[in-house]
Amino acid sequence: MTSTEPAPARTRRVDPGRRDRIIDACIEVIATDGVDGTSHRRVAEAAGVPLGSMTYHFTGREELLREAFTRFAQTVADRVTARMQAVPAGDVEAGIRAVVDSILQDVFPTSRELVLTHELYTLAARDASYRTLTHTWMRGSRAALERCFDPVTARVLDALVEGMTIHRALDNEPHDDADVELAVRRIVRA
Amino acid sequence: MTSTEPAPARTRRVDPGRRDRIIDACIEVIATDGVDGTSHRRVAEAAGVPLGSMTYHFTGREELLREAFTRFAQTVADRVTARMQAVPAGDVEAGIRAVVDSILQDVFPTSRELVLTHELYTLAARDASYRTLTHTWMRGSRAALERCFDPVTARVLDALVEGMTIHRALDNEPHDDADVELAVRRIVRA
Repeated sequence: MTSTEPAPARTRRVDPGRRDRIIDACIEVIATDGVDGTSHRRVAEAAGVPLGSMTYHFTGREELLREAFTRFAQTVADRVTARMQAVPAGDVEAGIRAVVDSILQDVFPTSRELVLTHELYTLAARDASYRTLTHTWMRGSRAALERCFDPVTARVLDALVEGMTIHRALDNEPHDDADVELAVRRIVRA
Repeated sequence: MTSTEPAPARTRRVDPGRRDRIIDACIEVIATDGVDGTSHRRVAEAAGVPLGSMTYHFTGREELLREAFTRFAQTVADRVTARMQAVPAGDVEAGIRAVVDSILQDVFPTSRELVLTHELYTLAARDASYRTLTHTWMRGSRAALERCFDPVTARVLDALVEGMTIHRALDNEPHDDADVELAVRRIVRA
């Protein structure tokens, strides 16, 4: 590379991570400003890239939102999967402990995750095409739970995790942590 | 009343339901345009009232949103409560049937309820002051469930209902209805 190379081509060649950085910036913009406040302009600003990069890397706002939520969901799902994979396969007691810890620690570790999850759910509630994302998310967490539980138990346990994390997060009074283990034990019939 | 009465005073006197109608219109605007698209102007239009009515009846957009979501949540909670109250107190089998029917029919009968619920959850995720609304909603549904179940079971069952209705609604594949009864039976240990 020399300084006589044309600037635009050089910028593209030396910045292979730009598309990735835009996706990460988009996640942060959604967390701060919501889906409705997420524009190409706002995301370009947050990513520190010229506005033209947005149309170069994405077919439109929809592709950008999909990529951002896909990555966000994968990050949360990976935490749950990692916790389950640390458990010996078929070990129900260790599985229960992992699910309880997931509810208490992994799903909404900060309000950022809580907000992003609900932004995605609201989008999927309005536009069925985003349910491919929520479907993939559910499929991933169920697969992780199947390490210790049968498929039907994994499905209903996944729903319980969803409900308990939301109810704990959206109440203005603290919930009893003991309820979590009790509910998980009942669902897995331990 | 005669046509010689001053118009503004007369309008107020003969339109005691105006505040109520504005709240109903606000619910519909949120369902259509989302919280972010809900302005005084848009709601006044939908309610067919002059813009001045908005500031006459509400201290601001926040009071309007709170009233709209409070009414919406109450309407959904009332359906669940009505179903539970039709059950003989303490009748666990009838209680299970009512909870299953609630999940399958009462919570998200249309995409409108699904959208409105998630608009509220997103708002409550961002702004803890809206958790007084989600708290009241949860307290109401738990109280209804206590007609047939002990308080701890009612709490965890309420979380299960939340998770199952969301997972059923936000998937792109149909869920097996039989999972619902199976999960409810496990939680109530029937």
